[in-house]
Amino acid sequence: MYGAGDVRVETVADPTIQQPTDAIVRTVLSCVCGSDLHPYHSMPATEHGQSMGHELLGVVEEIGSAVSTVKKGDLVIVPFAFSDNTCQICTDGFQTACPHGGFYGTPDTAGLQAELARVPLADGSLVVVPGITENDSALLPSLLTLSDVYLTGYHAAHMARIQAGQTVTVIGDGAVGLSAVLAAKQLGAERIILMGRHTSRTDLGRQWGATDVVAERGEDGINKVLDLTNGSGSHVVLEAVGLMPAYEQSFKVVRAGGVISRVGVPQYEEAPIGFMSLFGKNITLTGGPAPVRAYIEQAIPLVLDGTIDPGKVFDRTVSIDDVPAGYAAMDAREALKVLVTV
Amino acid sequence: MYGAGDVRVETVADPTIQQPTDAIVRTVLSCVCGSDLHPYHSMPATEHGQSMGHELLGVVEEIGSAVSTVKKGDLVIVPFAFSDNTCQICTDGFQTACPHGGFYGTPDTAGLQAELARVPLADGSLVVVPGITENDSALLPSLLTLSDVYLTGYHAAHMARIQAGQTVTVIGDGAVGLSAVLAAKQLGAERIILMGRHTSRTDLGRQWGATDVVAERGEDGINKVLDLTNGSGSHVVLEAVGLMPAYEQSFKVVRAGGVISRVGVPQYEEAPIGFMSLFGKNITLTGGPAPVRAYIEQAIPLVLDGTIDPGKVFDRTVSIDDVPAGYAAMDAREALKVLVTV
Repeated sequence: MYGAGDVRVETVADPTIQQPTDAIVRTVLSCVCGSDLHPYHSMPATEHGQSMGHELLGVVEEIGSAVSTVKKGDLVIVPFAFSDNTCQICTDGFQTACPHGGFYGTPDTAGLQAELARVPLADGSLVVVPGITENDSALLPSLLTLSDVYLTGYHAAHMARIQAGQTVTVIGDGAVGLSAVLAAKQLGAERIILMGRHTSRTDLGRQWGATDVVAERGEDGINKVLDLTNGSGSHVVLEAVGLMPAYEQSFKVVRAGGVISRVGVPQYEEAPIGFMSLFGKNITLTGGPAPVRAYIEQAIPLVLDGTIDPGKVFDRTVSIDDVPAGYAAMDAREALKVLVTV
Repeated sequence: MYGAGDVRVETVADPTIQQPTDAIVRTVLSCVCGSDLHPYHSMPATEHGQSMGHELLGVVEEIGSAVSTVKKGDLVIVPFAFSDNTCQICTDGFQTACPHGGFYGTPDTAGLQAELARVPLADGSLVVVPGITENDSALLPSLLTLSDVYLTGYHAAHMARIQAGQTVTVIGDGAVGLSAVLAAKQLGAERIILMGRHTSRTDLGRQWGATDVVAERGEDGINKVLDLTNGSGSHVVLEAVGLMPAYEQSFKVVRAGGVISRVGVPQYEEAPIGFMSLFGKNITLTGGPAPVRAYIEQAIPLVLDGTIDPGKVFDRTVSIDDVPAGYAAMDAREALKVLVTV
């Protein structure tokens, strides 16, 4: 990406093993993330460009001398952050904050919308999908969502500690919001109110467990949620947008003693948290970048046995040469989420 | 209170039953709260004054016709907020947000630094102390702390879901902060770092379970806590101050994936919660006005059998005629917390 709206496909040198803990992974599927749209809107023009992408399902091509848990030919899920998965922070289940880990698309570690990727800390980061090959095409999109989007929605629900019988409101009908609906249902939510106004998207939300859809925005939307909850508000709010109006909506529809769990990357730093917003009602605020690595192993069997089908968020496919068109389609909201093939 | 620094003792009409759900309680012990000092610092001068106090241990004098769970002569703890204790919000354990409840010191419901009090929603609010009379003087101060201060510290620890073996940092060496130390110890914290610089207070903190005391403030204090935790920070931070520097200290000493639990009433509304403060590290922010009513029954036996002795926060006693001197002593930090007798 060379600036807002300016995505180019370029031929670069193949990545190589740089550290003995690296692996080289050949892409089977990648995709475009809602968070990629933030720079697509606002990135200043640059001369050198920024390597993009952080979601990948692929096949191991080569491993460094210190790598022991994956081997050439394994089908692997590449989490959007790499981590050692052995330190205290990783052991706590917060691999996105691993002090030895990091993210893709930096000067040091290229983005994953590419034919080949260098994955640092391969033993800690990569998860092998057992018994599946790159030819099992029906399952591959759902497996790809375990690198980010589905498990980001799952993280929102997990951090909110959803309990059976609770009412959960999901703000945002993008791919993460819909994933949060699916995850909330998995965790036992009784009532799931989806706030969104794109019918094609909220229809998928209903299919995944949303019991109510609120299309109204602002005060009207808030009043609608309060009406649906006898005036008490929602036990849990999963905020999958990241903009201030979504946060404000969150604390206005959450019940006293309830939880707001954010996974939309906040496009703000300061926000209300005092007596009139969070404190007075004993609201808990949680969430952050999803440590998907913590959840992949338990999610794989659910994809393989058909319990969950999170790959349905993909409603368009482009080849890697057409990635710019994929960005444009998502930006125009013509596509919910775009799959990238090589 | 007629304005900053202006507390007066006045003779007013005795309270009377106004609703069939009311009770009249005769004061045995009351006290001055850290939160009473906020208006003591900043209240504009007024003509009519503000009735003060919200912590009370007393004896039931009279009950309304609909009251069934307490009777004349019962020794009762009066929680700092009244509540019906039957609605959904109360059943969830958040009685301070009861839609039918409220607080003392309003035009409708007088403050509790008084000889007699009208307690609305007596069945929901009052808790009888079984087998104890107002003559068992050694236990009474600790029982009084269950109306607010100890259980406010407990609420901080409870909302943080402290687990055995965790490191807990307590910010603030006031009566609530010290109570939070005692509660954290009760809940199994392995290491308790108390940030405070008044030795007489931090000595009580050590007695109650603090393993480390950090007297430094600002960056020095933050670095000291990080040093004590191998650079990772504290699993849990209990923030018992309510001022912005204490909040900023909180997110700088908390570990990735950790919890900040606030019970100091925030003297701010907006604060940092974005990627650089809470979100990036998956920090959970929780807390609010303590629903002490939810915790009183389980705390009474611990006081009666000597497991906890939270009444040690009282280091001065004044008669009700000397309440103004009690405010002055707490404001000057000559007293940690002032007991009021009638």
